Amino acid sequence: MLKDFETKKKEDKTALGAEIKELQSKLLGQQQELMKAKLPVVVLIEGWSAAGKGSLIKEFISELDPRFYHVESPKVMPESEERFPFLYPYMKAIPVNGKVTFLDSGWMENVVRKYLRHEITKDEYRRRIRQVNEFERQLRDGGYVILKIFLHVSKQEQFERIQSLAENPETEWRIDREDLWQHMEYKRFMEAYDDFMEKTGDITGWHILDGSRRKTAVRDALRLLVQRVERAVQEGRYEGITSEEDFPLKEMPLLSEIDLSQSIDSDEYKKELKKLQTRISELHNILYRRKIPVILCYEGWDAAGKGGNIRRLSYALDPRGFDVHPIASPLPHELSRHYLWRFWTRLPKTGHIAIYDRTWYGRVMVERLEGFCTEKEWRRAYHEINEFERMLTEWGAVVLKFWIHIDQDTQLARFKDRENTPEKQWKITDEDWRNREKWPEYEIAVNDLLQKTSTKNAPWYIIESNDKNYARIKTLRIIVKALEKACEKHFQRMMEGSAPLR
Amino acid sequence: MLKDFETKKKEDKTALGAEIKELQSKLLGQQQELMKAKLPVVVLIEGWSAAGKGSLIKEFISELDPRFYHVESPKVMPESEERFPFLYPYMKAIPVNGKVTFLDSGWMENVVRKYLRHEITKDEYRRRIRQVNEFERQLRDGGYVILKIFLHVSKQEQFERIQSLAENPETEWRIDREDLWQHMEYKRFMEAYDDFMEKTGDITGWHILDGSRRKTAVRDALRLLVQRVERAVQEGRYEGITSEEDFPLKEMPLLSEIDLSQSIDSDEYKKELKKLQTRISELHNILYRRKIPVILCYEGWDAAGKGGNIRRLSYALDPRGFDVHPIASPLPHELSRHYLWRFWTRLPKTGHIAIYDRTWYGRVMVERLEGFCTEKEWRRAYHEINEFERMLTEWGAVVLKFWIHIDQDTQLARFKDRENTPEKQWKITDEDWRNREKWPEYEIAVNDLLQKTSTKNAPWYIIESNDKNYARIKTLRIIVKALEKACEKHFQRMMEGSAPLR
Repeated sequence: MLKDFETKKKEDKTALGAEIKELQSKLLGQQQELMKAKLPVVVLIEGWSAAGKGSLIKEFISELDPRFYHVESPKVMPESEERFPFLYPYMKAIPVNGKVTFLDSGWMENVVRKYLRHEITKDEYRRRIRQVNEFERQLRDGGYVILKIFLHVSKQEQFERIQSLAENPETEWRIDREDLWQHMEYKRFMEAYDDFMEKTGDITGWHILDGSRRKTAVRDALRLLVQRVERAVQEGRYEGITSEEDFPLKEMPLLSEIDLSQSIDSDEYKKELKKLQTRISELHNILYRRKIPVILCYEGWDAAGKGGNIRRLSYALDPRGFDVHPIASPLPHELSRHYLWRFWTRLPKTGHIAIYDRTWYGRVMVERLEGFCTEKEWRRAYHEINEFERMLTEWGAVVLKFWIHIDQDTQLARFKDRENTPEKQWKITDEDWRNREKWPEYEIAVNDLLQKTSTKNAPWYIIESNDKNYARIKTLRIIVKALEKACEKHFQRMMEGSAPLR
Repeated sequence: MLKDFETKKKEDKTALGAEIKELQSKLLGQQQELMKAKLPVVVLIEGWSAAGKGSLIKEFISELDPRFYHVESPKVMPESEERFPFLYPYMKAIPVNGKVTFLDSGWMENVVRKYLRHEITKDEYRRRIRQVNEFERQLRDGGYVILKIFLHVSKQEQFERIQSLAENPETEWRIDREDLWQHMEYKRFMEAYDDFMEKTGDITGWHILDGSRRKTAVRDALRLLVQRVERAVQEGRYEGITSEEDFPLKEMPLLSEIDLSQSIDSDEYKKELKKLQTRISELHNILYRRKIPVILCYEGWDAAGKGGNIRRLSYALDPRGFDVHPIASPLPHELSRHYLWRFWTRLPKTGHIAIYDRTWYGRVMVERLEGFCTEKEWRRAYHEINEFERMLTEWGAVVLKFWIHIDQDTQLARFKDRENTPEKQWKITDEDWRNREKWPEYEIAVNDLLQKTSTKNAPWYIIESNDKNYARIKTLRIIVKALEKACEKHFQRMMEGSAPLR
C-alpha cells in the first residue's frame, strides 16, 4: 500500500514537471502572438515574504527570450523614488507593446506596509485604494493585459522557510527586519492583505496560489498566464469605454467670450514683474524646504507667448530646483506605451517644480484633430486626465494649468513678424500655418477641454496674451497666490499622510 | 573728484548690464546655429560654495528656449547613483546633438571632496584624474563642445556670503555642513582644486572667474561661451584622431584557427550544468552582499546560440539581481548622443549583474561594415572601448566578453531549421541572410576586435558553439572561475577605495 502511494506520488511529480515544461514552451510560443497583436502584459506577483515570488518569476522567464520581458523589483525602491507618487515606480516599469513586465511585488505590498506602519492615515489608505483601481483601469483601458497573483503561505510554513534561510550563512542576509516584522505581525498582515484584495479585485481579479506546494503553484501560475494571454490575443486589444464621474468643476467661459483688450503699461509691468519674481523666488525656497512639488502646465495658440511667459517665470527660480519639459511628438518608445507614461516619468521630485511647455492635453487637441488616437480614446481621456491630476494633488502637488490666449489677428501679425525677422524665422514652420487653418476645430477642442477638465484641484486659467506683458503678470500673480496657499496648507496635508514628509 | 568717480562707476555698471544683455541675445541666436551644426555642448561650472554658480546659470539660460538646454545639479546625487561609476551621472546628463547641458558642479567637486574626505586613496584619486581626462577626450572626440568654468571667491568673501545666507531665515537652509566644512578647510580645498585643475586642463582648459565681482563674472562667462560656440560652429564637428596606448593584451587566436569539433555528451552536460548553476547561484548571493557589479558581454554569429546560452545562465540567477539587455539598433535619442551613452545608462548597480546580448562592439562590427560611422570613428573605438572597460574594472566590476562561435555550415543548418520550424520562424529574417553573405568581412572585423580589445582586465573568450551544450558549459565555467576570483580580491579593492563599500 505505502509503496503504491510512493509510486503514485512520484508519478504525479513527474507529470507536474512535464506540465510545467509544456506550459513554458506554450508561453514561449505566445511571445510572437503578443508582438503581432501589440499587446503589453503586466504580471504582478504579490505575497508573503519567503513565499517564493522570486523562484516563481524564474520559472516564468526560464524559456523566454530576454528581449521579450523585464523583471522589476520595486520593493527595493531607491530613496529618490520615494520622492514621487507611490504609483510612480510601477508606471515607470510598464512595458512597451508586445512585451511583458513581471513585478516582484508592487502596489499592494507598498500600500499595505505603509498603512500597517502607520505612515499613512486610514483616509490616505482609502485614497490609495481608489488610485490603484484607477491605475489598473487606465492601464486595462489602454490595452494592457494585467494578471495579479498572490502567493500564500501559512504562518507555520513561513516560519520554517525563514528559519531555513536564516540558518544557511549563504542566504541568511536575505532575511531582513521587514520580513521578521511581517512574521511577527502575521495576523495583522493577513487582514490587511485580505482587505486590499477585496477592494481591488473588480477591475482585474486576484488569483491566490498556495505557495507551500511550490511545483503546483508554478504550474497554476503558468497556466493562468498562458490562458490570459490566449484570451487577450483572441479578443484583441481591449478598448475601454468612457467612464463618467462628476469631478467638481470650475465654471469656464468660452474662448469667444474672452476680452482680449487687456493690457498693462510698461512702467507698471517692470515694477510688478520685479516684485512678483522676488516673491516667487522666496516661495520657491519655502516649497523646496517643505518638499512641496509644483506642476505648471502651459498650453495655448502658436505664437501666443508661452515661451516668453515661461522665461519670466523661470528667471525667478533656482535652476537646481526646476525643469522645463518641452513636449513634442512622442518618440517611438513613448508611443508604444500608455500615453500618460511620458508625463508620469517627467514628474518633478517633491520640492521641485516641473513646467510643461505643452502637456498631456495634446491627447484631446492635436491627437484628436489629427486622428492620432481613436474617438473612444480621446473621449475617455478627459476622465483619465482628471484622475491623473487628482492623484497629483492628493500626492501634495500644486497643479496649475494656463491657456495662453490670443486672437487670430494677433497670431497672424506675430507669424508675419517671425517670417520677416531673421533671428525669429526658426520659430515659424509650415506646420504652424497648417494649424492656423484649423483654428475653428481647435477652438472647439479647447472649449471642450476647458469645460471638462477645469477641476477645483487642478484648475485652468485663461491668460489674455494679446499684450504679452499683461499675460506674464497675470500668470505670475496666479502662481504666487496658489503657492502661498499651498505653503499654508502644507502642515495639514502632512499630518494626513498625503503630503511628503520633510 | 569723488563725484566723478561715482558717475564713472555708475556708467561702468550700465555698460556692463548692456554687454550682458547683448551677449545673452547673441547666445539666443546661436541656438539655431548649434542645431543646424548638430553640435552638443557641455558647460561645466565648478567653484566654491556660495560663489554664485546657481545665479550664473540663471543668467546663462535667462533668454534661452527651454527646448534648447538642460540644467543638471549632480552634486545632490541620489543614493542610487552612488552605486554607479563616479562619472555615471555626468555621462547620463550629456545632451543630444544641438543642445546644451549646464552642470552645476560636476566631476571636479565629486573627486575632490571624496579625496579630501579620505573616501578614496591617493592611487584612486590618480586613477580618477586619468578617467576624467579620458572622459573629456572621448566626449570631445565624439563632437562635444566642452566649456569648463571655475568660480573663485576668497576665504573672506566666502565667509561674508555664508554669513549673509545664514542670517536670513529664508535662505539659511541653503548652508549645509558640507559648505561649512569647506570653509573651515579652505586652504586644503584650495590646494586640491589647484591640483585637480592642473591635471585636467590639457584636453579642455579651465577658465577661472572672479566670483566676487558678480556682474563681471557673468559677462566673462557669457563671453566665453559665445566665443566657444562661435568657434565650434565655424570649425564644424570635431573629429578625434586615433590615439594609441598600449593596453596589456591577452594573445588571441584567429577565428580560423579555432577547433569547432568540441562536444560534450548529454549525461555529462546535465550533471555539469546543474553543478555550475548551483555554484553560480551561491556566488550571486556573495556578489550581491559584497556589492560587486558584474558585466557579461555576449557577441557572436547569428544562430550561434547566444540566447540559449544566456538562458542557462540566467536560470541560475535571482531575477531581482540581474538584467538582460538586448541591444538592437539605437533609437533616435540614443543615436544623437555619444555612442557609448546607451551602454553607460544600462550599467548594473553595484551587486547586480548586467548581461548584454550584443554590445558596444557593434561600433566595430555592424557600424563599421555598414558605414553607420566614419572610418576614423570605428578606428578610434577600439581605444575608447578599452578605456571604457578599464574604467569599469577599476570601479570594481567583473567584465567578461564571449564570442559565441560557429562555422558557416552550422549556421546554414540552423537557419534552415528555423525556416522550417513554425515556432522558430520569427528568429530568422532577411537581414540574417544578408549578414551571412558578409561573413568574410565580418570575420575580418571580429578578428580585429579580438586582437585589439582582449585586455587583461576585460578579456575575450571564444566559445566553440557548434555543440551548444559544450558552449554553455564552457561559458558557465569561465564565469564561475572569474566570479570566485573577484570574491577573493574584493577586500583588497575595497581597501583601495575603488570597489564600492558594502
